[in-house]
Amino acid sequence: MITNAPILLNRYAEHLDGALRSALRGDSLLHPVLRYHVGLEDEHGKPREGLGKLLRPSLLLHTCQHLGGSLDRATRAAVALELVHNFSLIHDDIQDEDPTRRGFPTVWTRVGVAQAINAGDLLYAIAVHEILACGAGATAVLNRATTAMIEGQAMDLSFEDRLVESGEYLAMIDRKTGALIRCSFELGAVCADAPDDVRDRLVEFGIYVGRAFQIRDDVLGIWGDPAITGKPRGSDIRRRKKSFPIADAFSHATAEDRATLTAAYATDPIDDARVKTVMDILEKTDAKTHSEEQVHSNLQQAEDILESLPLEPSAQHEMRELVAFLARRNK
Amino acid sequence: MITNAPILLNRYAEHLDGALRSALRGDSLLHPVLRYHVGLEDEHGKPREGLGKLLRPSLLLHTCQHLGGSLDRATRAAVALELVHNFSLIHDDIQDEDPTRRGFPTVWTRVGVAQAINAGDLLYAIAVHEILACGAGATAVLNRATTAMIEGQAMDLSFEDRLVESGEYLAMIDRKTGALIRCSFELGAVCADAPDDVRDRLVEFGIYVGRAFQIRDDVLGIWGDPAITGKPRGSDIRRRKKSFPIADAFSHATAEDRATLTAAYATDPIDDARVKTVMDILEKTDAKTHSEEQVHSNLQQAEDILESLPLEPSAQHEMRELVAFLARRNK
Repeated sequence: MITNAPILLNRYAEHLDGALRSALRGDSLLHPVLRYHVGLEDEHGKPREGLGKLLRPSLLLHTCQHLGGSLDRATRAAVALELVHNFSLIHDDIQDEDPTRRGFPTVWTRVGVAQAINAGDLLYAIAVHEILACGAGATAVLNRATTAMIEGQAMDLSFEDRLVESGEYLAMIDRKTGALIRCSFELGAVCADAPDDVRDRLVEFGIYVGRAFQIRDDVLGIWGDPAITGKPRGSDIRRRKKSFPIADAFSHATAEDRATLTAAYATDPIDDARVKTVMDILEKTDAKTHSEEQVHSNLQQAEDILESLPLEPSAQHEMRELVAFLARRNK
Repeated sequence: MITNAPILLNRYAEHLDGALRSALRGDSLLHPVLRYHVGLEDEHGKPREGLGKLLRPSLLLHTCQHLGGSLDRATRAAVALELVHNFSLIHDDIQDEDPTRRGFPTVWTRVGVAQAINAGDLLYAIAVHEILACGAGATAVLNRATTAMIEGQAMDLSFEDRLVESGEYLAMIDRKTGALIRCSFELGAVCADAPDDVRDRLVEFGIYVGRAFQIRDDVLGIWGDPAITGKPRGSDIRRRKKSFPIADAFSHATAEDRATLTAAYATDPIDDARVKTVMDILEKTDAKTHSEEQVHSNLQQAEDILESLPLEPSAQHEMRELVAFLARRNK
């Protein structure tokens, strides 16, 4: 349950909980690990209510329903999309050596790296099984998005030892996080058998929503209120996480400040004094303003497309509320 | 080029080389890594002729053609199958920490574990893209096999710290290696639009062929002629690799010998003196004879099914020759 979230983000939670349980009910030795990872069970196999915010499947179901599609067909696609997202998280946690996710030990810390690789692979295979129930067309759409997501993940890793400018950063997040966000809308359209032009506009809409969502996330990772985000200010800098404000500052900084940024990002983790130095450069380059402008302009472009979509006024309103929430949330 | 192999194993090599190059011609930063891994390019991106034996895609194309299907459609399926096999090898090499494959450094040693995980994931996604060209039915068949393969891989890893009896071992290899072998025949039938009963018999045929192939491999890993296999005698024991002869010996050994085997397999690598002790227990329990009987009986059952299939005499002959080769090869 996400508090203060637009109603549509909670509307499908129970429905998706049941559908995910059904998709992951197998009895291979990895299945309990998968149910643990997505938050359906604790480490002893006892049911728990720990699913993530289910953003992507909720967007998909919402889009499909408002375009007149059936919830049944879209549910398999929504589950598949959520499983692809979760498969990527299992592999991502190994790559980043993250010990916890949403407050629980990550899969690789519980079963080891080798078995965690298999767990991610299996989740991907189950996702393909689910999406196939929606036909070859829907499967191709999800597969294209998965391919882009993996390529984005590879780009992100390749940035590990250098700072990138904002253009390169945007190309990476358009794939790494954007691909599945816009796929939410595209699959919603596909499951509703929407006309091609509606589908194309939804994909474009998804590109802007995805960017606004990610850059808002990046802003929160640096300037978010610690009392609300639960993370210290500048936490993404300390963790050397690539983000739009850093890429923007790197693009606009003086040669001297670029060298300072590069030197700071060559240490791991970045210590408090260096975090302060980086924050000062962000300030000098107006990185926060630029980032907020990016969020705003992407949001604006998303809203413009939204108006051109054949949706009832109430659906328009809900969708606008959701997009605004994603781009303006505080945690 | 495999020497002394039945002609059908080399028939499609050039055709498959071109099809694989086409499937992997993308320009993402991981694509050169994928072409390197399958053997199309060296580490500098220069073309080389290093593809593996292409067993699975050759079986698929052969089956499809002899059932009257078109080579064009089957080629996309054959490529997809080979890519699934190769995706599993990339992840397998990480899990086993293997430094080389077919004489070349493995992907993870070249680009690191994190990026190698992505390379495997991308290869899987490309495989799904290829198989989708053959329709949702073929995609479901390959996906089922992929799921079983991953589950077998997970079982194999779970055996890491204990010895298993032959029943459990067979259940594992039926998935880990058997799934893709029988999928070769099943996809061949699907691409030829063969009737359901032919397809079912081919799947059963594939189960026996898969077992005979794997157990022959296991026998060679222990008793193969070093001059032919290029590996010292007992090499699979030294590497603690699970295999049918070990599982068979463990099933038939006295309590004392079981304890000795368990103690030997608790060391890594197993030293020469202990390899000798293990070999002695294999001798006492007649593990080599039992293994060869398993190969023979699976081969026999495969041949019985083969006779019931609607194939031309020449195709029957080729297929029998191939199966015999897989079960009797010396390397």
